[in-house]
Amino acid sequence: MSHDLQDTISLLSRTPAALDALLRDLPERWTQRNEGGTTWSAFEVMGHLIHAERADWIPRVKTLLEFGETQPFAAFDRWGHEREVQGKSLGQLLDEFARVRAQNLDELRGLHLRQEDLEKKGLHPAFGPVTLSALLATWAAHDLTHLHQISRVLAYQYRETVGPWSVYLGVLQCTGHSAAS
Amino acid sequence: MSHDLQDTISLLSRTPAALDALLRDLPERWTQRNEGGTTWSAFEVMGHLIHAERADWIPRVKTLLEFGETQPFAAFDRWGHEREVQGKSLGQLLDEFARVRAQNLDELRGLHLRQEDLEKKGLHPAFGPVTLSALLATWAAHDLTHLHQISRVLAYQYRETVGPWSVYLGVLQCTGHSAAS
Repeated sequence: MSHDLQDTISLLSRTPAALDALLRDLPERWTQRNEGGTTWSAFEVMGHLIHAERADWIPRVKTLLEFGETQPFAAFDRWGHEREVQGKSLGQLLDEFARVRAQNLDELRGLHLRQEDLEKKGLHPAFGPVTLSALLATWAAHDLTHLHQISRVLAYQYRETVGPWSVYLGVLQCTGHSAAS
Repeated sequence: MSHDLQDTISLLSRTPAALDALLRDLPERWTQRNEGGTTWSAFEVMGHLIHAERADWIPRVKTLLEFGETQPFAAFDRWGHEREVQGKSLGQLLDEFARVRAQNLDELRGLHLRQEDLEKKGLHPAFGPVTLSALLATWAAHDLTHLHQISRVLAYQYRETVGPWSVYLGVLQCTGHSAAS
C-alpha cells in the first residue's frame, strides 16, 4: 500500500483536538482511573503521547536522515511519561500535547521530504533496518493505538454498570493492548 | 459501582465533537475504507451512531418508563444505518450526529431522573429485565465501543505501511469487535 505523507500529516494534525474534545473537563472518574495494576489511565496516556513527541518520532527521523543505518535510534523510555505528568492537570497535558505536536509537524514539513525520501532507511535497535515511510506511518498509527486504548480504559470504568450489555460491547472484549514501541 | 448520571451525560455530550475533530475533512483513504468484507468504514459507523440516536436509546428509555417490564423494547436494526448514509457526505453525518445527540440529551435532562429512577426496569427482547441505569451506561459505552472501532478501522489502513512496528501496536491486534446491541 503506497504511503502518501499528506495522509499521515492529516491524521497527526487532528489527534490533539480529538483528544481535547473527548477528555477536557471530563470527570476524573473517567480520566484518572486505569484498567487495574500498572495499566495507564487516560491522564497517563496523555503524558506518554507528549513524551513520545519529545523523545521518539522527530528525533528518530533526524537520526535516520543524518546517520542512515550506521547509528541505531536511541531507545525509548516507556515510563518517560512519569516525569511529564508530575504536578500537571489533564488540561495542561492536553495543551502541551497540542503545542508539541504542532511544533513537530512544522518541523516535519520543514524537511520538505520527497516521495523517494520515504524509502530511506534507519536502524531500529530491535528490528534492524526500517524505512522512513514505516517510521512516519507508525507515528500516526501510534496516535490511533492510544485513542483505541483511551476509549477502552474509559469503557472499562462502566464494565459492570452496563449490566448484560457487556457481552455486546466489543470494547469490553478488547485484547489489543500495546507493547513497548 | 455506582452510576452518576452526570458522568454519563458528560461523556455523551463530548463524543460528537471528538469524532468531528478526528474525522472531518480527513482524506477518504482513511474514512471510506473498512476492515474487509461487510465490516464498516468510519463513514458507516457515523451512520450507525445516528441511527441508534433515533431508534435505540431514548425510545428505549421511554418504553422502560412507560411500560416497565410489561412491554419489550423494539428490536434494533443493526443495518438501519444504510438508510442514514445514502447520498450524504461525512460532514453531513457529523453535523447530524451532533444535532440528534444534543436533542436527545435535552430530552434526557427534561425527564428529571432521580437516583432511584435508575433502578427502574424494562424488558430487553433478549436479556429480559434490565435497569434504566444499565441502559444509560450502555449508551455511553456504545459511544466508546465505536470510537474504539473507528480508531481500529483507521489503523487497519496502515497495517502494512507501519512495517515491523505492527507487532507493537495493540490496535492492530484488537479482537474486540462488537456484536448486535
